[in-house]
Amino acid sequence: MQPRQSLPGFRDFYPEDLARRTAIFRAWRSVARRYSFVEYDGPPLEPLELYTAKSGDEIVGQLFNFTDKGDRAVSLRPEMTPTFARMVAARANALPKPVRWYSIPQLFRYERATKGRLREHFQLNVDIVGEPSELADAELLCVAIDIMREVGLGPDDVRAKVSDRRLLNVLLAAIGIAEGQQGAVYAVLDKIARQPHEISREKLEEAGLVPHQIDRVIALPDISSMDDLDRDFGHVESCKSAIATFGRYLSHLRALGAEAWIDIDLSIVRGLAYYTGTVFELFDAKGELRAICGGGRYDTLLNQLGGVDLPALGFGMGDVVLGVLLKERGLLEDLVADAPEFWVVSTEKCEPASVLRAAAALRRMGYSAEYVLNEEKLRTQKSSAQIKAAERAGAAWLMIVRDDERAEVRPLARTPGEPARDGAEILLHELHDAERGFAALEEAGVPAPRED
Amino acid sequence: MQPRQSLPGFRDFYPEDLARRTAIFRAWRSVARRYSFVEYDGPPLEPLELYTAKSGDEIVGQLFNFTDKGDRAVSLRPEMTPTFARMVAARANALPKPVRWYSIPQLFRYERATKGRLREHFQLNVDIVGEPSELADAELLCVAIDIMREVGLGPDDVRAKVSDRRLLNVLLAAIGIAEGQQGAVYAVLDKIARQPHEISREKLEEAGLVPHQIDRVIALPDISSMDDLDRDFGHVESCKSAIATFGRYLSHLRALGAEAWIDIDLSIVRGLAYYTGTVFELFDAKGELRAICGGGRYDTLLNQLGGVDLPALGFGMGDVVLGVLLKERGLLEDLVADAPEFWVVSTEKCEPASVLRAAAALRRMGYSAEYVLNEEKLRTQKSSAQIKAAERAGAAWLMIVRDDERAEVRPLARTPGEPARDGAEILLHELHDAERGFAALEEAGVPAPRED
Repeated sequence: MQPRQSLPGFRDFYPEDLARRTAIFRAWRSVARRYSFVEYDGPPLEPLELYTAKSGDEIVGQLFNFTDKGDRAVSLRPEMTPTFARMVAARANALPKPVRWYSIPQLFRYERATKGRLREHFQLNVDIVGEPSELADAELLCVAIDIMREVGLGPDDVRAKVSDRRLLNVLLAAIGIAEGQQGAVYAVLDKIARQPHEISREKLEEAGLVPHQIDRVIALPDISSMDDLDRDFGHVESCKSAIATFGRYLSHLRALGAEAWIDIDLSIVRGLAYYTGTVFELFDAKGELRAICGGGRYDTLLNQLGGVDLPALGFGMGDVVLGVLLKERGLLEDLVADAPEFWVVSTEKCEPASVLRAAAALRRMGYSAEYVLNEEKLRTQKSSAQIKAAERAGAAWLMIVRDDERAEVRPLARTPGEPARDGAEILLHELHDAERGFAALEEAGVPAPRED
Repeated sequence: MQPRQSLPGFRDFYPEDLARRTAIFRAWRSVARRYSFVEYDGPPLEPLELYTAKSGDEIVGQLFNFTDKGDRAVSLRPEMTPTFARMVAARANALPKPVRWYSIPQLFRYERATKGRLREHFQLNVDIVGEPSELADAELLCVAIDIMREVGLGPDDVRAKVSDRRLLNVLLAAIGIAEGQQGAVYAVLDKIARQPHEISREKLEEAGLVPHQIDRVIALPDISSMDDLDRDFGHVESCKSAIATFGRYLSHLRALGAEAWIDIDLSIVRGLAYYTGTVFELFDAKGELRAICGGGRYDTLLNQLGGVDLPALGFGMGDVVLGVLLKERGLLEDLVADAPEFWVVSTEKCEPASVLRAAAALRRMGYSAEYVLNEEKLRTQKSSAQIKAAERAGAAWLMIVRDDERAEVRPLARTPGEPARDGAEILLHELHDAERGFAALEEAGVPAPRED
């Protein structure tokens, strides 16, 4: 007999789990489509070198890598960006700019086994290539925010923390911090909300900052508006251009309707070294979970990886944290719709073939339809037993086939308290002409088929 | 720099490729949903033993298998059935029967490298568990046939060849073939259409069949109707029950509207040893391609693999052969719809923010909308240049923002010969109230947003 368990860190998606995953994917795709992004995909297995070229050999410890039967060093993909860079680079000249692509890869990391820690997840990747304008940055963040709206979350649930590496660089320079010290300052800013200020101060001191520089770095996260920024740095000539760019970014976000979601937060630096401009992260407003989403501008990465010098920006949003948040808020179940629209019921006076023909006709019209999948039962089982099966399946409508010519159509899943509605009679042959069929069902109160 | 190639046998899905893949997935999901099947998924990486338990150690030569960092023997999934069996077995008692599940896994096989041979493909798996009735067999085949209809193929394009192992077994017994000879006869029948009859005869002789038995085996594929079957075997008592079951299967297929697609073909045995009842394959009518789809009833497999004694049946349909057939027939492009519905164009008299607000409003209404992603260009680029970009992107409608209050809406992608339609003026603020917005756009001739 076969093993009874999946591998640690890998999920089985039973239909109820898959329906929740599908609901999230549907929201991702729906919003990406509205922004005119098109979907792409790459192989889940790639040459190992694709990942070491970007992240160095240290990454190998976290990979599902192996040598294949053709003696190739290969790896399951831990992230999508290297594949994306390879694909864009291969057609860099032919692709109309800006490139607006998205993908929903399953990603794999061999994390040291902590209980419940996953080794795979799905991640929406949304990227724009070939547009240096900060309008592209605003558009990108709005995709992430509109996904929150799409799944029923509002600015009280989720905050978008935004910053800009170019801005931060000139602010740090204005404070007198040397380029060689920036890395250490970034590292402190990245943790500033999560560690006591004394520790942050110590680390900045170790990096060689003098007390008044330390004060100003510690105060950076207090900047929460363009007014704050202007007050603290507006007078510094070398900061003016970056401040103005950041201001335009925010005003585009306003025009696109995202203002209510945005918090300026200069401590958002994003761990990854490759960001060059705006950076952002989406968090649950209570700050209880890891980031829902993170991204920004990475204008030099495509050149480093693929040898094509094109500005680019993008974000990644995983299915796990978002799923947890939606579940907590009770929003996930509302997004799921998998129960059949019709259950076709046989009666004593009808032939089983009439049930089959009715089900086939409903399906041809676009409805989902189920019935007792057994000829003997269709002949002998009581309608009441079949209606119970329909109830268990959560079917919305019953079609009770009275005889070989007529059926009764009536709603099944009633909201509690709603008075029972009478059934309407329809003639079965009408179902075989779509137009007459839809008219007959409409008269019985049945809505149009659910779209996929 | 990173490698420029994906691994041999692995596909990059550029947006135009992904759109075709999505069109096929959409048809699969849409039909499965109408039959009230629900989607599940399992891990793409599983314990190696899951596959050797079903197929023996020989399978290992065809797998992407390796030892992971936790010293586990693992493999990329070469097929979905073992995962399916594991998942069903784990909840066998709790699941309402019949289980109607489908999945669209990506599968991996390390085939010896022939040029163009793929090492991954996507495969729709549709399975029913817990129903022994031949009505389930008919329903299952109808799912496959309705998928053909859904993508625009008809019974002149695709044939469903059906047989039944139980029937074939009693027919062979009636011919006097011993159980120990059946395997050899199956192997001959499986190849009978592709090899000269002399070779088939030789092999049957080697298996110990006498001449009149050989004649009757060679004649089995000529049976193409219930009448043929009754004529040749109807008088044999031991065949009557299996013939009647097969007849009911065919009559259910008739009631479900699939008759025109069906060819009885007793040479369809399916290579895999585990089928126990009906078996079927879908082929292009010209017989030029490999099978589009194959499946049948496997009542003993779940017991062998998962230790739960439940009747089951299912089929697999890959994306590759179906994609080739659709491409040949010119049907694939029609299924693809990825171009934006709106392109928002700026003019001299409007602020860029008005374009952004209009695009945001359209997206909120459910439309896909794109515009020039650069503030400077929105200020200075001529409308005519923007309209050219819209044409290149294949946008259906233009929204030309005349000033900060008004826009002109007009169709862009016209069928050749259709007279140019005038634009309609709308007030931008109307778009921010969904109801008034839809009314205004409807008046301008714009259809409802495309569903995802």
